[in-house]
Amino acid sequence: MIKVGVVTASDKGSRGLREDKSAPVIKEMVGQIDGKVVEYVIVPDEQAEIEKTLVSFSDDLRLDLVFTTGGTGMSPRDVTPEATLNVVDRLVPGIPEAMRARSLEITSRAMLSRAAAGIRGQTLIINLPGSPKAVRECLEVILPALKHGIEILRGEAGECGRS
Amino acid sequence: MIKVGVVTASDKGSRGLREDKSAPVIKEMVGQIDGKVVEYVIVPDEQAEIEKTLVSFSDDLRLDLVFTTGGTGMSPRDVTPEATLNVVDRLVPGIPEAMRARSLEITSRAMLSRAAAGIRGQTLIINLPGSPKAVRECLEVILPALKHGIEILRGEAGECGRS
Amino acid sequence: MIKVGVVTASDKGSRGLREDKSAPVIKEMVGQIDGKVVEYVIVPDEQAEIEKTLVSFSDDLRLDLVFTTGGTGMSPRDVTPEATLNVVDRLVPGIPEAMRARSLEITSRAMLSRAAAGIRGQTLIINLPGSPKAVRECLEVILPALKHGIEILRGEAGECGRS
Repeated sequence: MIKVGVVTASDKGSRGLREDKSAPVIKEMVGQIDGKVVEYVIVPDEQAEIEKTLVSFSDDLRLDLVFTTGGTGMSPRDVTPEATLNVVDRLVPGIPEAMRARSLEITSRAMLSRAAAGIRGQTLIINLPGSPKAVRECLEVILPALKHGIEILRGEAGECGRS
Repeated sequence: MIKVGVVTASDKGSRGLREDKSAPVIKEMVGQIDGKVVEYVIVPDEQAEIEKTLVSFSDDLRLDLVFTTGGTGMSPRDVTPEATLNVVDRLVPGIPEAMRARSLEITSRAMLSRAAAGIRGQTLIINLPGSPKAVRECLEVILPALKHGIEILRGEAGECGRS
Repeated sequence: MIKVGVVTASDKGSRGLREDKSAPVIKEMVGQIDGKVVEYVIVPDEQAEIEKTLVSFSDDLRLDLVFTTGGTGMSPRDVTPEATLNVVDRLVPGIPEAMRARSLEITSRAMLSRAAAGIRGQTLIINLPGSPKAVRECLEVILPALKHGIEILRGEAGECGRS
């Protein structure tokens, strides 16, 4: 079983002024890779709060996989990638590249997504977009690779053909 | 109206030894998104000078959008991306990714473009290539997304479907 | 002639417990761009050792092109990109983007490659994957652009159409 955390970054959501429609999509879809959302919080678009949550989910709760949703756009309040880049030890740039390349086939606005991904300790942290539709599209692209990635990260699988 | 600045990085251009054929392409094409080039300078390929100009265009002149042209290649004097990365607060990696992916369909040399893009305050800064032909190709790819991006950055537009 | 170095990052390889099948692929394929592998070492997956080797290959031996192979995946011991990012002066993000985009057509796992590329002084450093098959696929994508890139880096070629 893959232990998954979800961090929704949303000023309105954190004050109960907007329903979070993206976290349920993540909860449903991670089932495809034997994932289970065991932690879920909504935080305002404050870099320090997002960082604190990501650190706690990684270091204290030792989750395998943490998805953020929201805060990856061009708005002055969008700082989820900055929080993520600040707490990861190692970058995984191919994940956001793959998400953007796929989304770019749907809309040119995909290039404005500033999503990042990286590893902190044994936890893979991935920024997803804010809208439930875009979350679904991005998860469809990356889920097929994530199960293997997490097995490697946990030291459970050998990398085939590694020299 | 979108206030646009153009910074041409060129040792020869800054000494009047080479005509800048790329800035006119930018001036013409930004009309497509209701943009107007209100500032334009040619600087040598010196990182400190490029940074100073980008900071002034962002903080003092409060432009919406700044394009650089030139200095993104492999030459020892090419330092425009380094200047850009040094002054932006937030990266927008999808913009150079989209430019390179498109250019790669035309020539494998596109992968040598080291262009970056990011946000400083309320200003979006984007590195374009040096050649007027490549500038045109890249602007065709990114202009459709930029108008929306700048509206978001200014706080004028809601992000549809944000959670 | 292009002077090429190869750094194989492999815990098992460095202790003689695994044959390095990727370096021979690199040696063979660089012939296509008039390259010759003049230095080759196998180091364990230790960031400090990889960095030391990259610095020596660049600053002391003044190689034109250094390929690493191995250590770009998700395993806790994979730190080749971190070593690379730590020693380069200037990034060349389009090279790993192009490799991943091509590999992604073959397998979704390509997005887990954390490969980086950059320039230190006059040396272009590129992370290749660990498996010989993936090395071959990636070199097929990037070799056509590298000869020109290295000529520019050496100051031997003008950039056509530079403004």
